[in-house]
Order: sequence, then C-alpha cells, then structure tokens
Amino acid sequence: MRLTLSALVASTALAGAAQADALRDEALQYFAPLPSTVPAVKDNRITPEKIDLGKALFFDPRLSASGVFSCASCHNLATGGDDNMETSVGHGWQKGPRNSPTVLNAVLNEAQFWDGRADDLKAQAKGPVQAGVEMANTPAQVELTLNSMPQYVDWFKAAFPGEDSPANFDNMAKAIEAFEATLITPAPFDAFLNGDDQALTADARAGLKLFMDKGCSSCHSGVNVGGHGYYPFGLIEKPGADILPAGDKGRFSVTATVDDEYVFRAAPLRNVAVTAPYFHSGKVWDLPTAVSIMAESQLGEQMSDQEVGQVVAFLQSLTGTMPAVTVPVLPAETASTPRPTSEVMPE
Amino acid sequence: MRLTLSALVASTALAGAAQADALRDEALQYFAPLPSTVPAVKDNRITPEKIDLGKALFFDPRLSASGVFSCASCHNLATGGDDNMETSVGHGWQKGPRNSPTVLNAVLNEAQFWDGRADDLKAQAKGPVQAGVEMANTPAQVELTLNSMPQYVDWFKAAFPGEDSPANFDNMAKAIEAFEATLITPAPFDAFLNGDDQALTADARAGLKLFMDKGCSSCHSGVNVGGHGYYPFGLIEKPGADILPAGDKGRFSVTATVDDEYVFRAAPLRNVAVTAPYFHSGKVWDLPTAVSIMAESQLGEQMSDQEVGQVVAFLQSLTGTMPAVTVPVLPAETASTPRPTSEVMPE
Repeated sequence: MRLTLSALVASTALAGAAQADALRDEALQYFAPLPSTVPAVKDNRITPEKIDLGKALFFDPRLSASGVFSCASCHNLATGGDDNMETSVGHGWQKGPRNSPTVLNAVLNEAQFWDGRADDLKAQAKGPVQAGVEMANTPAQVELTLNSMPQYVDWFKAAFPGEDSPANFDNMAKAIEAFEATLITPAPFDAFLNGDDQALTADARAGLKLFMDKGCSSCHSGVNVGGHGYYPFGLIEKPGADILPAGDKGRFSVTATVDDEYVFRAAPLRNVAVTAPYFHSGKVWDLPTAVSIMAESQLGEQMSDQEVGQVVAFLQSLTGTMPAVTVPVLPAETASTPRPTSEVMPE
Repeated sequence: MRLTLSALVASTALAGAAQADALRDEALQYFAPLPSTVPAVKDNRITPEKIDLGKALFFDPRLSASGVFSCASCHNLATGGDDNMETSVGHGWQKGPRNSPTVLNAVLNEAQFWDGRADDLKAQAKGPVQAGVEMANTPAQVELTLNSMPQYVDWFKAAFPGEDSPANFDNMAKAIEAFEATLITPAPFDAFLNGDDQALTADARAGLKLFMDKGCSSCHSGVNVGGHGYYPFGLIEKPGADILPAGDKGRFSVTATVDDEYVFRAAPLRNVAVTAPYFHSGKVWDLPTAVSIMAESQLGEQMSDQEVGQVVAFLQSLTGTMPAVTVPVLPAETASTPRPTSEVMPE
C-alpha cells in the first residue's frame, strides 16, 4: 500500500513536472528570463567607474534647479523604482503629465517614456532634468554645477578617460544610463523560466497560462513582459475619460500621425505589483481593477474574478529582488557651485 | 654625521610628538571622540529590529501627506545629512523657517532643533511630519498608513514586541531615533583625539589650537563640537539682518524669556565643511566667511586670513566617514493605504 501511494505521488509529480515543462516551453515563446549580467547598451560601454559616477548623479538633487529633486525622487529605489503617485510633483509643486514609470529593468525596454519618444536611457535621462515641471534645469547649468566640484570632475575623468571636458551633459546621461543598467531585479518568474517548477504557485501558473491564452502576451511580451511595441489604449473599447484623459494623445505627439492617437507603449510589467498606481494617467490604484480594465479595453474580455486573481498572482511573480544600492557620498558644493533656486520661471 | 642627523630627526619627531600630546591633552578638556558603538538613548532600547524599521521609515515618503517628502529629503544621507539649501522646500513648495541641520551624529546633541525645543530625536522626529510647511501630515493619518501595510505591522511587532498596537506614531518616532543613532561619522579629529598624531595636518592642528585659545570652544565643545548650550547670536556684535533676520527670535519662542531673544543652540560642527549653507538662516555659503562672522559677532575678534584658514582646516578634520546605508525596500501600498495628496490646506 505504501509503495503504491509512493508510486502514485511520484507519477503525479512527474505529470506536474511535465505540465510545468509544457507551460515553460509555451512561456519561452513569449518571454525571456533576465540576463545574469549587466546588459550592454548602445554607444555606451559600461564600466565600474561609469556605474559609480552614474549612481552619484542619480542621487544628486543638485541636478535640479531647486536642489529638491534627483532622479531618485520620482524613481525611488525604495518603492519599486517609481514614486507611487498619479503623476509626479515637480518644480514649483507642478504636477507632471504622466505617471512616472519604474526605472527597474528599464534598460531592457526597447524605448523609454510612455510614448517611446526616447530611444534609450541616455536620451531619457536628459528629459526630466530639463522639463519645467520636473527638475527645471538647463544643460549649461548642470555642466556648471558638475564642473564646480573637483571630485565630480575626477569621477568624470575616470569614467570617460581621454576626453577633454568629460563633465558634460551628454556624459551625465551616459553615466546615469550605466548605473540604471545595473537595476535588474530577478523574480520568481525568472526562476520558473530558468527551470525551477516550484518558483510559481499554482495560481501564478494558471495566471501565466491565461495571460498567454487570452492574448495579454500579444503586447506584454519579451524580457520585460512589455516595454516594446505601441498599441492604442482602448483597442476594443475605450476606457472612460477618468482613466484615458482626452488631452493626452500619447504617441500622436511624437509621430503626428492620426493612427497614433491614444497610442502608448505597452507597459513593462516587471514589479507591477509594487508600482501602483497604473496606466499613463495613474488613475487606477488596484491591480485587479487594472487587469479587468485591460481585459475589457484591449481584448474585449470579461474576466471572472477567479481569472483576474490568477493573472494577478502571475503578475506578483514578476516582483523581483532589488540589487543592494548603498547611498552614495556626494561631493560638497564649492564657492562656484550654482545655488539652488525654488523660483518658478514663466514659460 | 649621519648619526647626528638621525638623532636630530628623531629628537624633532619626539618634540613633535610631545607637542601633539600637549595639544591632545588640551583638546580632551573640551572635546571627546565619537563612541565606537551605537549610543544608548533615553527610554528607547536600540535593537537591530528597531534600526531596520527606523531606516525604512526614514526613507518612506508616505510619511508625508503628498508622498513627496521623507525624512531623507531634508536630511539627505548623500549630502552630509542635510539638504544644502538656505531653508528646506516642503509641502506646497513652501519654505521652512530655518536651515535644516544635519542628522549625522545628531543623537549626541543634548537637544534638537536650532532652538532646542525637542529633548531628543524621538521628540524631534514628530515635528517635521506634522509641520504644515514640511510633510503636512497628522499622527492619525500616519498610523492609518502604517497599519495599512502588513509588512510594516510585522516590522513594528518585531521592533516593539508584546505591544498591542505597535504601529503607532510614538513608535514610529522611536524607530527613527534608533536608526538615526547609527549615523555616527568618525573623522580625522577622532583619530587625533584617540592618539594618532598624523591624523591632523599642521594647519588643522594650528586651527584646533586657535579654536580653543580664541574661545570658540567655550560654546562649541563636547563630542559634537557644539550641539549643547544656548547662546545669543551676536553675543558681542549683532550680525546684519541679512544673516540674523529680525523675525526669528530663536529660543525666545520656546521659553518666552526676554533673555532668550536671538538665542540659539550652539551648532554642532561635525561635518560642517560639507553642510553649507550656514547659520539658522542658511544665508552664508562660504565656511571661511562663516568663521569670520562668528569670530566677530561672538568673540569680538578680527581673525586674520591665515587664522581663518587654519580654523577651517580644523573644521575640515571634522568631516567623517559615513556608515554604509543600503536603500531599504519599502512595503507596497494596499487598497486601504491613504493616497497622497498635494493639496495645500488652509491654516
């Protein structure tokens, strides 16, 4: 009797393993596990010196005119790499137009921003620094700031050897990109893709199957489970103006093509469970609600509560482990460092 | 000849050592080196669980009504434990009344705030959270926030075992105090006090001697080279209203005693070289200028440029080594977590 039971357990386990293998094979057609090393990026060889400099810059509030905001303000590494607000608060207490996306794993997105207007993170990094409603600074002022501190100049020299004036705006962006490329968060889903059957709960596995069968993975695919490809929000049915405000036409502002009205980059879904609120408008705080809205607007599907719960369980398996990031010690200002100003310039 | 030279070098070294010993003996009458362990604090036993919880709270912007500001915003561990602004920018882009003091080694101050109105860091921590121009939150809202996240409740249970509702405002403050007590930054001056003659440059030693001989150490003494005792700003000669604005009468607002008009706590001087701008008004960015103003207003002394330079060299020897602080991973909000609001309430 004991032998028979053991045999039964063993054969069930085998069947489970076979099922997991089949699910994994299917999943690997859509997704890929995170790389085990820092990804290479275009035109920017990543070195330890560049990473260290980039970390300092990422945390330095003196990149903003007011001295209040650093990259880490809206891409807070303590809270999932975003700021957990509808839209960010910036210079002069102004609100940004769109929800701040997570910086975690962002290096693996095919383009940056909700409308994909920046090709990569070094292009992206220059945006918020100059945006009047965000850091409200200028490249010239940033360069004055960086060059006023000998320690920064030394760090730039080490990170960009052989350059004449390395402490410049372009190199600032490249160094920040290098640091951000290290912000990779391996998750249970990666362990599953890499062969660990036990890494996902039964609900998460069912959710993964649904995610593929229902068609979510048509847009949210690849290593970041999204982060590439552009799709209309409301492909089947437009959500209400509370969620999709009429004033923000998405990628239309980049391409000026009517087809791109209300078109956005498919959101990368890694760490989605810890980066509420959702959508470019940041109007939805609850992940099950966000899943239901997506099912309806993009797929014309009414998902049952059970199905939504399983998809959410899958999405939770995308919450990864943060790399340990030690707060950097930044150089002190000198007599020639531009002073912070909280003044709001007229447009 | 070589022997004689060696003997001369040796005797000069001995004389130097004797001089250093004499300077150290004098210095130890005024100052003390930092402790090598986390200092004990009153009514708040420090445990690893409390430190970890306190670190999470210190970095959590959800302690502010807007979700924009954490303790780390104005006490930035990347920039000397303060924010390097005249006065901090807070809720609704309002400016605080006084320069943000460094949190580094603050546990060793005898009282907190420029006017000493908080006895310790657990009393201090409650202030900015509730100040309308800073984090603009309420104890009730903070408690709702903390109790809405099971991970926080678990952390509070571990830090305050046996308590019924541990995730409360008082315990928030105690945990923050426990974390802040770890922010101790040993400096070259400590190495000198502990017996290392080489830890201070000749200029720094001359500056230390001047600091004591001129009388700076009458107020700026103890382990934090200040941080205790209350003195009128302008003991001998009042500085101009640009530096000492008439509207801020300092400790008078705490004691309502005429003698306390324009009285402030002697600033603790550890890390002063990396925490410009200076004074409660934050109006002076340059350390030599600050030293000259102090000499004139408090001591009636016109210090020569050389003397000022030596005192500054001594003050630079108070710049310490930051403990490594890893950015915490904070719990994600839940459905019941109060949402951030950037609205500014009327007074």
